[in-house]
Amino acid sequence: MNILIMGVDGYIGWPLALRELKKGNKVAGIDSFFTRKRVKEVHSDSVLPVPPFGERNARLQKKYGKGIKFYRGDVSDAKFLFDVIRKEKPDAIVHLAEQRSAPYSMIGLKQATETMVKNIVSTLNLAYAVKETVPEAHILKLGTMGEYGTPNIDIPEGFFEVEYHGRKDFLPFPKQAGSWYHWTKVHDSNNLMFANKLWKTPITDVMQGVVYGTRTKEIEETGLFTRFDIDEVWGTALNRFCAQATVGLPLTPYGRGGQTRGFLSLEDSITCLDLALHNPPQNGEYRVFNQFDEHYSVLQLAKMVRFIYERLYGGRVEIVNTPNPRVEMEEHYYNPEHTKLAKLGYRRSRSLEDEIKIILEDLARFKGKIESLRNVINPKTIWVKSSSQILS
Amino acid sequence: MNILIMGVDGYIGWPLALRELKKGNKVAGIDSFFTRKRVKEVHSDSVLPVPPFGERNARLQKKYGKGIKFYRGDVSDAKFLFDVIRKEKPDAIVHLAEQRSAPYSMIGLKQATETMVKNIVSTLNLAYAVKETVPEAHILKLGTMGEYGTPNIDIPEGFFEVEYHGRKDFLPFPKQAGSWYHWTKVHDSNNLMFANKLWKTPITDVMQGVVYGTRTKEIEETGLFTRFDIDEVWGTALNRFCAQATVGLPLTPYGRGGQTRGFLSLEDSITCLDLALHNPPQNGEYRVFNQFDEHYSVLQLAKMVRFIYERLYGGRVEIVNTPNPRVEMEEHYYNPEHTKLAKLGYRRSRSLEDEIKIILEDLARFKGKIESLRNVINPKTIWVKSSSQILS
Repeated sequence: MNILIMGVDGYIGWPLALRELKKGNKVAGIDSFFTRKRVKEVHSDSVLPVPPFGERNARLQKKYGKGIKFYRGDVSDAKFLFDVIRKEKPDAIVHLAEQRSAPYSMIGLKQATETMVKNIVSTLNLAYAVKETVPEAHILKLGTMGEYGTPNIDIPEGFFEVEYHGRKDFLPFPKQAGSWYHWTKVHDSNNLMFANKLWKTPITDVMQGVVYGTRTKEIEETGLFTRFDIDEVWGTALNRFCAQATVGLPLTPYGRGGQTRGFLSLEDSITCLDLALHNPPQNGEYRVFNQFDEHYSVLQLAKMVRFIYERLYGGRVEIVNTPNPRVEMEEHYYNPEHTKLAKLGYRRSRSLEDEIKIILEDLARFKGKIESLRNVINPKTIWVKSSSQILS
Repeated sequence: MNILIMGVDGYIGWPLALRELKKGNKVAGIDSFFTRKRVKEVHSDSVLPVPPFGERNARLQKKYGKGIKFYRGDVSDAKFLFDVIRKEKPDAIVHLAEQRSAPYSMIGLKQATETMVKNIVSTLNLAYAVKETVPEAHILKLGTMGEYGTPNIDIPEGFFEVEYHGRKDFLPFPKQAGSWYHWTKVHDSNNLMFANKLWKTPITDVMQGVVYGTRTKEIEETGLFTRFDIDEVWGTALNRFCAQATVGLPLTPYGRGGQTRGFLSLEDSITCLDLALHNPPQNGEYRVFNQFDEHYSVLQLAKMVRFIYERLYGGRVEIVNTPNPRVEMEEHYYNPEHTKLAKLGYRRSRSLEDEIKIILEDLARFKGKIESLRNVINPKTIWVKSSSQILS
């Protein structure tokens, strides 16, 4: 299979490329190094070492005897994207090339606008490029479980039967996202659903939970890490908790920590995407997968990290609930369905506990790096204070 | 009351300005003349004469003793919009300054992108400008009934109670728009709902039906027409049918013509917007109005125009169903609720039949103009053929 990964330099993109190369597929990749640049701007860095792409790719070439055919560019540039797709003629295109940080989108109007425009335009470009160049190709698009918000009812996989005033229809589930970033993902999902209606493009829209972890099988095999962000803008909860524990900082769930989300290890995320790639939708279908393993509250995860760290390394880990920078419910019902990937054969690879042990083990080697990032871990981006920096 | 109308040169903007001025309000307006420019590009023009804005405004000044304080500029330019709002300090801002044509958005990727970016960025700019400059001001935003699509159940006014797996929640109604333009309106609605969640900005989101007509009370009084488009890109169904009948062209419903939509006369549309303006939402509420009078199928309207025209002017009017350029259901259930405006006192001003008579009477004076537009009336923009012209 001929696969094009947009955003191949990212947390998910890199290990997915490794997996598909390893399996014998042809892999091309695109990246503009947007995340590297923006992470630097907030004086942060990946905790795990990620050498420049050319160097990683050369090392990969050595390990596997083949590398990623790489194109540097921005997929919100239609001409660039059309040229790559026309050249590569992929069977499947994985779209991970979006601004992926909720806090970044909430810094101010400039970042909100950048996130809206980049994400929406890139997805629109992709829909047209596929339609005109490789109309049978499968678009695998990364969305987020955060698109759904936290409704007081079960969350289906994209669509559900609604009864209203005695009549029924099968409708998209109403979304209630919690940041401009999350809303761009909703807009993308809507636009892709419409592109599919127009042109029958085969599309898998992945509502992914929060991913954690440092390793996949191929990362272990090659020693070529993927990035690992722990700062308030680019990091995510469980990864951050593990980093905090590693250097003796208190774990900082936001607010009361009752916010419940779907979580998934990096290894399992890659397995799910691989399953979706190799079981494409039939007959020009638009399908939605809820891609996560289990749901936990943020406080549960903090407690689990504390428990495991103290047992393994001794000492005392503190949990300090910090004022919640976000606008979100801190206690709520949460029960999203997730059966479609299981039907394709998905099974969890490791327990959450084992995964946390591995993360802690990997991070122990980079204590100094984590220490150097102390000042960018705690939240500075406050949702309700998002403002128009353009005028200052 | 101090009102700012974004898109004051448009079909709705102009008569709304007249109404509010007449009622003694202070009216400022913004326009970039985007519609004038884009209408020219498809070799079309307003059937009713709309002199340059400065001239219209001068005439208005003469009639009413006061005019519109006008700012020329593009509201997708944040700096410009912030400056105007900071200067005017309006109590209410009416946002009509979006790319408003579904066919335009479907011409190709360039137009789709332009529509997405302009509409979303303008609304985001507005949300931030209000929050930072006049946080109590009321945003009255024009959306469209087309956001809902044609579900097989009743359509509530924005929100409804959903029961799923035995639990209940009050959720946004799922949208299923039918063009990139309509989707931008959905994206705007979602973004405004979120802005309200962040900052409690008072917002009325108007899901407006298809508007028809040539006159409002103030247009009759001043003789200062608003624009009237009949071409395939910028015109709407009933207005086009009246123009076709006027010059002996067949009326051209798309497909079988069973597409049912909410319709509303221009006079009644202005009345509804005026009611919303003078009854703003309380306590930082985000509210949704379904703003239309009655729903009809496109074929019903064509038959009504034929019936009235033949009775008044004799001769034979033909109805020729043309291949549907859009992707839409041509027979479907349609029952949107619309009680909120009625509760504020909205009553229909004239029967549909009387309104059609008036349109035909006005258009009879501009037969030559309609004749000159013969070649741009029939559909050339085909939804499924929307393509990337950027690369040609």
